[in-house]
This record gives sequence, C-alpha cells and structure tokens, in this order.
Amino acid sequence: FSEIFGTDGFPLAIHFIMFLPVLQSQADGNLAAEFLPRAMSLQIIGTYAQTEMGHGTNVKELETTAIYDKTTEEFIVNTPTRSAMKWWPGNLGKMSNYAIVTAQLHIEGVNRGPHNFVIQLRSEKDHKQMKGITIGDIGPKMGISSVDNGFLALDHVRVPRKNMLMKHAKVSPDGKYTPPVHAKLNYGGMVYVRAHMIHNLARNLCAAVTIATRYSAIRRQGRVDTASSEVQILDYQTQQYRLFPQVLLVIRKKESNKVCCQISRAFAYLFTGAETDLLPDLHGLTSGLKSVVSFEAAQAVEQCRMACGGHGFSHASGLPKLFGIVVAGCTYEGENMVMLQQTARYLMKAAEKAERGEKLAYSIEFIGKKTRGQSTIGLHRGDTEMEMEAIFEALEHAARRLIIHAYDEWEKRVKEGESRDRAWNEVTVEMNRAARIYTRLFIARSFHRRVISSPETVRSVLTDLLSLYLHYECIDMAHHLLHDGHCNGDQINFLKRSMNEDLIKLRPDAVSIVDSFDQSDRELNSVLGRRDGNVYEALFEWAKSSELNYTDVLPAVEKHIKVMLEANRAKM
Amino acid sequence: FSEIFGTDGFPLAIHFIMFLPVLQSQADGNLAAEFLPRAMSLQIIGTYAQTEMGHGTNVKELETTAIYDKTTEEFIVNTPTRSAMKWWPGNLGKMSNYAIVTAQLHIEGVNRGPHNFVIQLRSEKDHKQMKGITIGDIGPKMGISSVDNGFLALDHVRVPRKNMLMKHAKVSPDGKYTPPVHAKLNYGGMVYVRAHMIHNLARNLCAAVTIATRYSAIRRQGRVDTASSEVQILDYQTQQYRLFPQVLLVIRKKESNKVCCQISRAFAYLFTGAETDLLPDLHGLTSGLKSVVSFEAAQAVEQCRMACGGHGFSHASGLPKLFGIVVAGCTYEGENMVMLQQTARYLMKAAEKAERGEKLAYSIEFIGKKTRGQSTIGLHRGDTEMEMEAIFEALEHAARRLIIHAYDEWEKRVKEGESRDRAWNEVTVEMNRAARIYTRLFIARSFHRRVISSPETVRSVLTDLLSLYLHYECIDMAHHLLHDGHCNGDQINFLKRSMNEDLIKLRPDAVSIVDSFDQSDRELNSVLGRRDGNVYEALFEWAKSSELNYTDVLPAVEKHIKVMLEANRAKM
Repeated sequence: FSEIFGTDGFPLAIHFIMFLPVLQSQADGNLAAEFLPRAMSLQIIGTYAQTEMGHGTNVKELETTAIYDKTTEEFIVNTPTRSAMKWWPGNLGKMSNYAIVTAQLHIEGVNRGPHNFVIQLRSEKDHKQMKGITIGDIGPKMGISSVDNGFLALDHVRVPRKNMLMKHAKVSPDGKYTPPVHAKLNYGGMVYVRAHMIHNLARNLCAAVTIATRYSAIRRQGRVDTASSEVQILDYQTQQYRLFPQVLLVIRKKESNKVCCQISRAFAYLFTGAETDLLPDLHGLTSGLKSVVSFEAAQAVEQCRMACGGHGFSHASGLPKLFGIVVAGCTYEGENMVMLQQTARYLMKAAEKAERGEKLAYSIEFIGKKTRGQSTIGLHRGDTEMEMEAIFEALEHAARRLIIHAYDEWEKRVKEGESRDRAWNEVTVEMNRAARIYTRLFIARSFHRRVISSPETVRSVLTDLLSLYLHYECIDMAHHLLHDGHCNGDQINFLKRSMNEDLIKLRPDAVSIVDSFDQSDRELNSVLGRRDGNVYEALFEWAKSSELNYTDVLPAVEKHIKVMLEANRAKM
Repeated sequence: FSEIFGTDGFPLAIHFIMFLPVLQSQADGNLAAEFLPRAMSLQIIGTYAQTEMGHGTNVKELETTAIYDKTTEEFIVNTPTRSAMKWWPGNLGKMSNYAIVTAQLHIEGVNRGPHNFVIQLRSEKDHKQMKGITIGDIGPKMGISSVDNGFLALDHVRVPRKNMLMKHAKVSPDGKYTPPVHAKLNYGGMVYVRAHMIHNLARNLCAAVTIATRYSAIRRQGRVDTASSEVQILDYQTQQYRLFPQVLLVIRKKESNKVCCQISRAFAYLFTGAETDLLPDLHGLTSGLKSVVSFEAAQAVEQCRMACGGHGFSHASGLPKLFGIVVAGCTYEGENMVMLQQTARYLMKAAEKAERGEKLAYSIEFIGKKTRGQSTIGLHRGDTEMEMEAIFEALEHAARRLIIHAYDEWEKRVKEGESRDRAWNEVTVEMNRAARIYTRLFIARSFHRRVISSPETVRSVLTDLLSLYLHYECIDMAHHLLHDGHCNGDQINFLKRSMNEDLIKLRPDAVSIVDSFDQSDRELNSVLGRRDGNVYEALFEWAKSSELNYTDVLPAVEKHIKVMLEANRAKM
C-alpha cells in the first residue's frame, strides 16, 4: 500500500492494523463469525476508537460509558461530556462505517472498567451517519495528512449485547459479569500493535537513511584541503557522525538468511516465549522499547533531514513527511514518558526481588549480579570479542547502578514518611533514566547476538556496524560510565578514537549498505534519494510543478500587491 | 505583521529583514539614493538572492558570475549551470520585483569573489518577468508555507555598473577593482541577520512555552496517588523537567526595566563593543550562538509539542508550525555544523595564543587560566552565590579541557605528518563539542550577569530560574565535568537533587511566568494556549471547520469506497 499512497497513511490503514487484529484476538466465536468474513473481504471498513479528547494514554479514566440494560439486553453507549468524545482514531472521520469503541462497562451501578464494543457508525447503503452518532474529521496535523483522523460523539446509542468483544471478559443476558482469566490478557493487543509500530518505524527510518546517505554522496560542498576540488559531504567526519549511527539502526529484517534488525530480533525472541507468566516481562520491556525506539527513530530521521541541508526542508526530499509520521510514534500507543514509567515500575519490582535474592528473568538478571572491579575497556588491544565484552560489562554496571540508585531514592522518601505514590513522582526523572539505559542495553545485546550468529558473507560489515554502535552508545552514556569511577576519562577517549576509526572504516561501504536495503524510487518518493543520483535536474522538474507556478503572476499579486505598489508610487 | 499573517512568514518578510538592511549597509550613496526611498515606501519589493541550488553555506563557491564589460560599463550576470540557479530565497518566487543577487565578480579574467548587485526581476508595470530572467516557486516545504521561496535563473542579464553595492568594494568605470578596507567587513550583515534570527527564535519559543505550560495546567490525566482526583499534568516531575528549562530560555527582552533574555543581553554586550578589531571575536561567538541557540530552540519547541501529547500533533495547537519555522534556523544563515567549526577555528587560534602566553579577549580569557584544584560544587551549604561560582568554575574547567584536548589531537596529527586541513577533518566531532560547550558557557555567564543586575521585584524568581538553568546545564554536560575527576558522582547527584528542588519551587509560578510574556491569543494562534483555558470546547469548534467536514460523505467515498464495498458484498 505504501508504494501507492506514500508514507503518509492510507484510508484502510486502521482497518488492517487495528480493527481486524482486535476482532481476531478479542471477539468471541459468534461475533467473529458475524464480522470477520465481512471485514476481511472489505464489505465493511472498521476503525478502533479508544482515545478521547480528554484522555489518551490513561485508558482507565476514559469517560465514554456503556451501561447494560438487561431488560432489552443492550448496552447504552454514551459520551456524556465534550472531552468524552472519541478523538484521533485514524480513518474514523470519513472512511469507516464500523468501529470498535472502548467504553466503561457499567452493570447495575458497578463500573467494570474499559471494554470494547462493535458499533455501526454509518449506513451500509448511503454511508450516512447512524442515529445518535456524530462523526467528523479533526482537521490538519503535522503528518499523516492522508488519514482522516476523526471525532465521534455517541448519544445514548443502543448496542446489542452480542456486540461486546467477549473472548476474555463476558456479560451474560441477565447481567452477570465474568472477568478475564488474566487481568493483563488484553495487553496482547498492545504488544502486537507496538511490534507493528516498531516495524514501521524501522521502515521509515530506512527510507530516511537511504535518502540522506545517497544525497551526501552527490552533494559537493567545500574542500577538505584547499588544493583539491569540492568534496562529497559524506567525506566530512561530522556528516559521518550524523549519518552512520542512523544507518545501523535500520539494518532490518529482509529474509531469513539476510540481516535482521535488533528490534525484530528482540520481538522474535519475545514472541517465542510469550506465555501468560511472561506478560509482566513482555510488558515492561515493550513499553521501554516503544519509547526508546520511537524517540531514537524520530531523532534519527531529523538528523538525516538536517544532514541534507536546505533541500532536506523541502517536501521534495520526502524527509519532512517521514519525520511527521515517525515522531507521531512518540505520542500514540502510549506517551513515551508514561511508557518509560511502566518499564521503571517493572525494574523497581526487579530491584526489590534482587534485594531479596530471588531469581530474575533473563533480560534483568544483571540487576542481581555484582560488578567485577574496574572496567577493562581499552585494555584488550586487538581482541574485538574481549573489547565488546568489556563494553557490555560497563553498560550493565551503569544500568544496574542507575536502577538501584532510583530504587534507593524512592525507598528513602518512603522511609521518611511519604506515600509510595507521592515519593514516586519525586524520582520519576531518575526512574526514566534507569528505564532508558536498561532498554538500550537490551537492544545492544540483541543486536550483538544477531551479529555473531549472522552468515559469514555479511558478518564483517555487521561487526563494523556493531562496533560503531557500541562505541556510540558508550560515548552517549559516558556520564553514567564515569559516574562512580567504573570507567575513567582515558577509557572514554579510547572509545572516541575507536569510534572515529569506525567512521573511517564504514565510509567506503556506506552507499552500498543503504543500496542493499533495496528500496525503489517509488517507495522512497524523494528527489534527493533517487537511485540515479540526478538530483539537481529532478529538483528543478519537481519545483516547476508547484501549484504556485500554474500562473506566473498570481491573482493575489494582481489584486493586492500591484495595487499597493502603484498606490505608493502615486503618493510620491 | 505576525499577528496578521501568523508565525508562518509573510510576503514582505525578506524585503524588511534582508533587502533593506543590506541596501543600507552595503550600497554607496548614489545607489542608496536611487533605491532606498522607493524600497522604504514600498514602491518596489525586494529580496536577497544568495543561496544556489548547489551551494548554500559555502558562499565562496557560488557559481553565478558577474563579468564586467567595460565597453558598455555593465556586468553580465549569468547562472551557467542548473545547480547555479538561485534557490530558496524567500518571496523570490512570486512577490518581489527586485533582488540583491550575489555573484562571483570577474574583471578581466580575475575572479574577485562574491559581490552583490541590484537586479530588476519583474516589470513594475505588469509584474511580468524581465528578459533573461526565469523565476518560480520551489514548492511546498516543512514550514513557512506562506512564503514563496523561489528559484531564479539569469541568462546573461546586463546590469549597469552603478547597480553593484559599492560601499566597501568598488569597480571603477574602466574596470579597476578596489577591495574593502577590512576583508570581513561584510560580516556585519551576517551578524545583524543572526541577531534578528535569535530574536525571532526567542519569540517563537516564547509562544511554544506559553502554549505548553498553559495547556499542562488545563489537562488532567492520571493520579499521583489513587485517593485524589486526576491531577494537572504540570504536577508531574517529568512534565516539569520537560517544560521549565524551556521557560527560562525565553525570558525575553520587553522594556528596559523588565526582564531581558540572556541572548539579547549577549548581543547588547556585543554590539556596544563592535569595532573592526573585535570582528573575529564577534564572528567566532555569533557563529556558535547561531548554532547552539537554533538547535536548542528547535529541541525546546519539540519538547513543548510532545508535552501536549496528541493534541500537540494537531495544527490546532499551533506547535507544528512553530517547530517548522524554528527548526529551519538550524540550516539557514549557515548550516549549524559548519557554524560550530567557525567557532572552533576561533577557539583553536585562542588556544595557540594561550600556549604562547598572549592576552585573550574577555569571553575566552578562561582558556589561558589554570584550574584551582577539585570542584567545590555542593560544599557551600546555603550560599547560593558561592554555589553558582563553583558551577561556573567547573564549566570553565570543562570547556578549557575540551578546547585544549581538541587542539592537542589536531596538533598531534599534524606532527605525525598530516596536512593541517586533513588533520582538521579527523577531529571535527571533538572540535564541535568544544565549540558547543564554550558557547553554552558564554550564554550561562551572560544570563547570570543579567540576573544579578535585575530589579529587586523580579530578582527572586529570576534567581530560581537561573538556578534551574545552571543545574540543568551541568547535568546535561556531566560527562565533561566527570571526565578527569574534576567533579565526582556525589556532586552530580547533588546537582540532580538541587534541580528537583528547583522544579518544585517553580511549579506555583509557572503559569504566571508565561502569562507575564503577555502574548495575545491572536499572536499565539493556538487552541491549546488560549488565555481563558476553554480548550476542549474550542478544539471541537476548530475541528468542525476542517475542510473535510464541508460535506459529510466525501465525493471520493461516493466514487470509490462505496463502489468497492458494494462490489465486495455482491461477490458473496
């Protein structure tokens, strides 16, 4: 689809990404039989309406209500206030005729929390709005302009009992409520969407990196020394420093015998072990991954864009649209700050367990370990494997220290008499730091595992990328490595020198690496990223087709500017 | 103007910001007499056409030529290649009928470098393009959508000799060239534009901060403890950490007895001492300021935008447009990486001088000084002044270390036999680090000077802001404070605790502080930032006016979607 519609979203996106998967995973047999075949054969278009004007990430406090009326065996679904209106769901405004709507389920005065209901929004005959339903588009946004994000008000809409998604929680005809077996079972959907999201982020980042790297090999500006001619800007160390770390963020899954990105790898690892008792681990980790990956991806696209100078600011480059869609990922599916807090809560439980000497899950095992003396970074001349091990050891040490420090700060406040919740709010900046470094360590580890098990043919270039990646991460987190003297300044200088060597080593392969991502010009949709490199001519062609060039002297100039100039001349 | 046109630029912007000031500062008496009165009374509209498709920041390599023909006393101005076309100048595409065009001046086979010429682009009668001139709009961009950034090709256009801007460099009728007295005299224009730019960045940042802070006091989401009701999101530590450091970036000049922002202050300081022999200092400093301030402002606006969650992504918030215009500042008027290198070159000269024991200008004096033992941060219980001095001392130490480290790395390579230029390119990442920390130190010092000399009435809140600012900067640069053990981890922890206290202290004043910026709703142009706080109702009103809501069932749905759905139903 993205080749046809571009990166900016399309009218059936949410139908496929949300409506169908949620139906499949949460509808019981009868409801699935009624709607799945029709949805899969596109006889209806659905969306997923959870977020409200007044509440997003905090799903627990949604204001929309579904009150069960057992006399008619119906739910009365209602948005009682302005801020209760559903707001933001993609394809809600104009395209969809059905939606899964999230509402607080009330049965005989008791609120059972948010549950999902299939509700018809528009007539299948003339696409007009159903009775009690008010829908529209919410107006222009920073990105995803091709998607009709919409609003939805429900005025006491009656929905038959069977339309509730009852695979996990159930309501019997006479109003008896059965809760789901596992309270967090519905998290499965969130994990799926986040996995899909990270896949998409990688795809968009891949495009951005390809565009910026190719263009940096075309653009010539300035001289490294005065004698030679102007150089490709990719020869500048600063440009390499800007781009190469982004390149390795996108080494992505293609086929089984090709390279996988660390993220897909992480998820593959997770899904194979995804049983109920792993849910807390899975949730703690994916929350952090969602936050770290979306933020890093947005920063990476923005670095790619700025690395293209002025032309990166033009829509000709394709980069502003990529940024718009990628940066949205910092907010949707759970605001990043809140996501990190969820990871932090998971880590605090782990710290507590570690204190009691209990066994921890694989990815957090290091919290309970002890550091073996000073870091040995830089002491393994030439032994890449040992050097990498020293780096992981240092990162683990730093992550452990931050996690335990955050835990101690929190405990200290609680011991001084503050409530656990209030004390929490006073240490959240530190909590988020801990969550971030834990997640980055996890990603680094996954990428490392992937590289050492990769086929011979690509292992050498992947090892160079891994080396750059680890050095870059360490320098970026140098503060935490230095904090308690585990590393010293000389070791940081060693890492910096190594990173500079990595950049030099990767320079000759840079264009080939992005070419290997094998993206078509159609997919990239960028004048700067064209495979043939004929950038300047194409830029002129693109500009000529600007709407403002349809007429040379614009009507507004005729009507206002010329009149003003003439009037001013007449005055003299 | 910005109240009428919004933040997105307007059709006469470049006329006032560039065309007029450049005329005033570079035209000789006759040319000024001919054009200034007409330009000032808006009988003509001018723009400034320097950047080309193939060259931006590297002005020296512009391809447009102006060859002097002494037989007719004219310059023949020509864009010989596709990439020589002028590209990006604002208001060039449709509005302007004159331009100051930068071209390489050739006289009798000798290239005298880039010079400026006034050239008529469009007829004053019918606004049609003049002979030999091709102009148009360059198409949509990430921001500044109301500005017609344009392209311009010149096909051997003949321009009378008097149209060259000859206040500094001159060409006599018989082709004798007189260079300007001081080679860098034209830098005056750049310094002016950068000052204006920083003023504008502050104004836009001010709007972003006002919007995000007000909205954070309206938006309620989640609970700090389960017993109480939902809290204003401004009560979350992470939200304060996101916003308050941005607030103090915009404490901006209003009137003499009100608060000035550190930037205006820095510039005021510069301009009073701006004589020719200060030009290298001025240039070194403004290059760094341009880079650091534009990057920090862009990051700050983006933090403000993300702090508004989903609604920050909607154009209703006004924030995406603010981001578009602010982030452009990282690129225009000199790409930030290149700007930092200019500051670094200035610092390297200073390091050389310091090595020889020569006296240095005030802002770089610290490079030649010695550090007095370990940092005393955290050892001055309760003495704010002493504590701040310790912080400045630590920042100076770190900046000095980075500058000298970069210098040594460079020298080392030169001694090993590399050319100075090639060696430079291998240490530029480190050079940029040094330039950045030097500039941040300068800003912090200027802000400090401003605060201690501010009137009593505002000094207390300004001191709180200064305290937050310094703590924030130190934590952000902790890596450099820890690097050689000048500070230790306990001191960094002390800074973190102090910063948390600053956040708590500023919370009650936050909304009043942004209210004191006194921006009208019209100026803010944001549904989220409204003074009356009636955000949700206004959001709905705004959405209803979306173009997509003019008709309920869109023609595209009638024509394609409904047809598709019906066809799919028929198949079953």
